[in-house]
Amino acid sequence: MRLKDLQQAYDKKLTEQLLAPFQGHTRLEASIRYSLENAGKHLRVYFILALMKAFGVDEAKGLPAGIAVEYIHTYSLIHDDLPAMDDDDYRRGVLSNHRAFDEATAILAGDALLTAAFEYLSATDLYSDRTKIKLMTLLSQAAGYQGMVSGQSLDLEAEGTDISLEAVEVMYQRKTGALLSYSIKAGALLSAVESEGQKLLNNFAKHYGLAYQIHNDLQEEVWTDKKRGKISHSDKLLQKNTFPAHLGIPGAKSYLEKCVQAAKENLASLEGIYETRNFELLYDFLHYLKI
Amino acid sequence: MRLKDLQQAYDKKLTEQLLAPFQGHTRLEASIRYSLENAGKHLRVYFILALMKAFGVDEAKGLPAGIAVEYIHTYSLIHDDLPAMDDDDYRRGVLSNHRAFDEATAILAGDALLTAAFEYLSATDLYSDRTKIKLMTLLSQAAGYQGMVSGQSLDLEAEGTDISLEAVEVMYQRKTGALLSYSIKAGALLSAVESEGQKLLNNFAKHYGLAYQIHNDLQEEVWTDKKRGKISHSDKLLQKNTFPAHLGIPGAKSYLEKCVQAAKENLASLEGIYETRNFELLYDFLHYLKI
Repeated sequence: MRLKDLQQAYDKKLTEQLLAPFQGHTRLEASIRYSLENAGKHLRVYFILALMKAFGVDEAKGLPAGIAVEYIHTYSLIHDDLPAMDDDDYRRGVLSNHRAFDEATAILAGDALLTAAFEYLSATDLYSDRTKIKLMTLLSQAAGYQGMVSGQSLDLEAEGTDISLEAVEVMYQRKTGALLSYSIKAGALLSAVESEGQKLLNNFAKHYGLAYQIHNDLQEEVWTDKKRGKISHSDKLLQKNTFPAHLGIPGAKSYLEKCVQAAKENLASLEGIYETRNFELLYDFLHYLKI
Repeated sequence: MRLKDLQQAYDKKLTEQLLAPFQGHTRLEASIRYSLENAGKHLRVYFILALMKAFGVDEAKGLPAGIAVEYIHTYSLIHDDLPAMDDDDYRRGVLSNHRAFDEATAILAGDALLTAAFEYLSATDLYSDRTKIKLMTLLSQAAGYQGMVSGQSLDLEAEGTDISLEAVEVMYQRKTGALLSYSIKAGALLSAVESEGQKLLNNFAKHYGLAYQIHNDLQEEVWTDKKRGKISHSDKLLQKNTFPAHLGIPGAKSYLEKCVQAAKENLASLEGIYETRNFELLYDFLHYLKI
């Protein structure tokens, strides 16, 4: 099975389950639905499902762990777009939440989604209490003041200043890497992967997260925003501490290639341990990172 | 023991434990400490401790459940004060978080505290996994899109429009009542109170929550803000759907009295069931609501 088949098999069910709690008629719920409906490829969910499938575990049991991280990811995008933060009017080709609704509603929609992640995990009957607590520990650590939130804070602080490439890596490891690592750890937990396998998977997640961010940076550098009719290669972007700003575009491209290679090596080592398993689905995530 | 003795016994320890996770040198953590240090009377924590003490349970075990709700309460104040929300420059006599730091930091500090509530509960070794899940269910429901967040959203939507007194009660039941009810439910859970007692305690919490809000409204109506050198009885306040706006000041006062009376009756019924117990500490909360 390839990644696109897994996505095809689950996308409808996943969207339904993501939206299910927010069916009320309030403005707040409308704005939550708006952002969930305009979500991306649900990468963080499929990492969990792909990993479970690779280890021969029923991947459907990964959905609640995935829905929780998708709520966290969606809240973070809504808050990141706010005028006081990155001030983005568009997100994935449609108006950002605070532009489609208003700032107050966008702040509250983010707060509600963040809370809903833990409400959802608390309520599912697919996991034991022990497993729920482990997942909530992983998720709250990945999302909180030492994870994603601190990454966004470091990013805003560093704007317009020079920080080292090392500091850029730390910032992105928290800002985007932490939630991706959660997905890999959650998938490993739900597949009962042992410690040696966990280590390799965590390293895979680290290299993947870095590659993912460099890929993102490179796309933004060359991306023409048709909606706004301008190239997003703006001054503001250049003031940001991105990988291309530090390494130049050719340098960023070869660093991306190096990270992808390292991630592949982790998967190869994994194949060495789990000889009967097929990690094709995880290799597929790396194929998205072609420039 | 009276409420002030309980507060005296725990206030130092409580503040230390609230601040303990946020000892880093980042701007984000400084802003989190700022809001936690300028917190109020920790009412939501002491409700849990008081209830446990009344039922003869070691109240120190209530601290993690209390710290979690205090994090949620503090985040909600930071976000409520934001320019896009209630636009308050001051909170408890000092600059609000976004004025002392900046808007982006305030948004992130709120997000971090909200996440920390669940991280803290996940990590404590004072509760079983089952108890943790029950507390997280109660807390996330109280705080989320059908609880506190929805109350704040309804409040903002209703600004400048006429809504019924019934709708005002629903709004406040969610906006401030939900977290107070969490504390009572958490205290009852940790004291293993049975269903009849739970029912009376929940009713007590409802009447108390309503009384607390009316008391707040009345204080705002007559409260002179020395810091700002003006009376906060502003037009903006009058456009809000408060109890005095609906009932007039004398009407609000007598409604407050009625709610306090109803709360006392719930405590009296509780004394009827638990004859050997002393609910003095809970009566003390009502004494704060004198006008």
